[in-house]
Amino acid sequence: MVNGLCAFPLTPLNQRGIDEAAFIRLIERLVAAEVDSICVLGSTGNYAYLSRAERARVIQLAMQHAGHIPAMAGISALTTKDVLDLAQDAQQAGAGAVLLAPMSYQKLTADEVFGLYETVAHALSVPLCVYDNPGTTHFEFSDELHGRIAQLPNVASIKIPPVPTDPEAAKARVDRLRALIPSHVSLGISGDVCAATGIEAGCETWYSVIGGLFPHTALSITRAAQAGDSQTAAKLSAQLESLWALFRQYGSLRVVATAAEILALAESPCLPAPLQPLTGQARQQLARVLEPLSLR
Amino acid sequence: MVNGLCAFPLTPLNQRGIDEAAFIRLIERLVAAEVDSICVLGSTGNYAYLSRAERARVIQLAMQHAGHIPAMAGISALTTKDVLDLAQDAQQAGAGAVLLAPMSYQKLTADEVFGLYETVAHALSVPLCVYDNPGTTHFEFSDELHGRIAQLPNVASIKIPPVPTDPEAAKARVDRLRALIPSHVSLGISGDVCAATGIEAGCETWYSVIGGLFPHTALSITRAAQAGDSQTAAKLSAQLESLWALFRQYGSLRVVATAAEILALAESPCLPAPLQPLTGQARQQLARVLEPLSLR
Repeated sequence: MVNGLCAFPLTPLNQRGIDEAAFIRLIERLVAAEVDSICVLGSTGNYAYLSRAERARVIQLAMQHAGHIPAMAGISALTTKDVLDLAQDAQQAGAGAVLLAPMSYQKLTADEVFGLYETVAHALSVPLCVYDNPGTTHFEFSDELHGRIAQLPNVASIKIPPVPTDPEAAKARVDRLRALIPSHVSLGISGDVCAATGIEAGCETWYSVIGGLFPHTALSITRAAQAGDSQTAAKLSAQLESLWALFRQYGSLRVVATAAEILALAESPCLPAPLQPLTGQARQQLARVLEPLSLR
Repeated sequence: MVNGLCAFPLTPLNQRGIDEAAFIRLIERLVAAEVDSICVLGSTGNYAYLSRAERARVIQLAMQHAGHIPAMAGISALTTKDVLDLAQDAQQAGAGAVLLAPMSYQKLTADEVFGLYETVAHALSVPLCVYDNPGTTHFEFSDELHGRIAQLPNVASIKIPPVPTDPEAAKARVDRLRALIPSHVSLGISGDVCAATGIEAGCETWYSVIGGLFPHTALSITRAAQAGDSQTAAKLSAQLESLWALFRQYGSLRVVATAAEILALAESPCLPAPLQPLTGQARQQLARVLEPLSLR
């Protein structure tokens, strides 16, 4: 798995389905900015709302336009059978790695989640990133379970949920997990708000939502944090506080999707119903936040 | 929507997909017991794990074997588009009503959930039951939202989550909701453990998990509660406490699925992976619980 900034682009939709032109534009922005890697069909890429055929098409488009940037694809689904099918599709389309969350309807047990990863890991021929996102999967990994899964073949990274905002507490959290997983398995931070803190705490990768839309902005934070310049990284991140506040209030997906619409990078609405982009005052507030930030 | 016992059968799986013979046997048990209605493709019917074609086939089989018993079908999915497709399939297959939960991946807002029900309700030609199940959808309906949705065309019932165990608190809870919804919209109780309490508190229907596997047992409780014989209903329900304890520990779906396997009503495993039926000591414990109860 590639260290640094892994950018998660939206999969913009329109009345006809996937807005391929808009999606390709987003990928091209990431390539031009030279992000370290791209992950399509993450939560920001709306994987959960797309059909198998749509997902295969998204990966195909990403591989056609990602150039030399390594690309990973989400393969999560509610059944092990569907995950295996999606893994096969992703590999056939040329994805360099896959991302797997324990998506759930019925609350899953630790044994069931281990069983899912065990089956899928053994079936893969590319690296696997374990996607730990309790906000959408409603599954809480224990560190012990992460340790067990990290021993499986092909497991190469863990995308962890936000770390504490306090740098020492963040480092303690990352150290605790790091002690339980093999050294060849990298840790990556999710939750853009705490990305700088996460990298300084020892995460090798930032699995980034804003990186998918504003790669230069995300790269500035990443490079400062990677260089150990925690002051600059923290300052750059703090400059986006008005955006992070909207993330907290409306969820990062609705905010970046609406930002893409405002910037004419996607049609409106670009989210799959029943999800709705921001409207009315919230949308105006986002437009007011975006303007002075000059994100790119 | 039919008052009384609405039985939710499993959709048993085997290595080849839906175990049609086992599913038909379950439907025939319900017809022989003369439950008041049947709902296929509820959470117990594993709707979330089945493809559109599989779901259409389940409804077709149910309609072929339900005889004179009214049958409802679950149409929930993550996108409004898929829900509309499933609604059309259910109506074409002859389902007498449909059940819709606000299934989620990204946490939904109240406006998004209202928008889903508004779109679907207007597209339907059969009654709709609103499925309020925060344990699986992770969406918490406010009473005010229930009131708004209940005004939509075709909305005929609300399947509510468990009520408090205290009868007075349960009645207060049902009264509070009842005051906000039109009189033609019925209330039905979920959570088998509190079904007797729910009916006595004013719920007209028991949307029942054990009713799908042990219809006579569920009917005994239903009839006593409907007759106002709260003492008998409570006693009959209390007799199942060892079963309810397993429901609380492992989830009702794993318990009834494993019970179906133990009773040779389904092959093992009959659940879609990564979900697993009970194994080892838990399975033995269930077998020990089932024997003296003589459920049927």
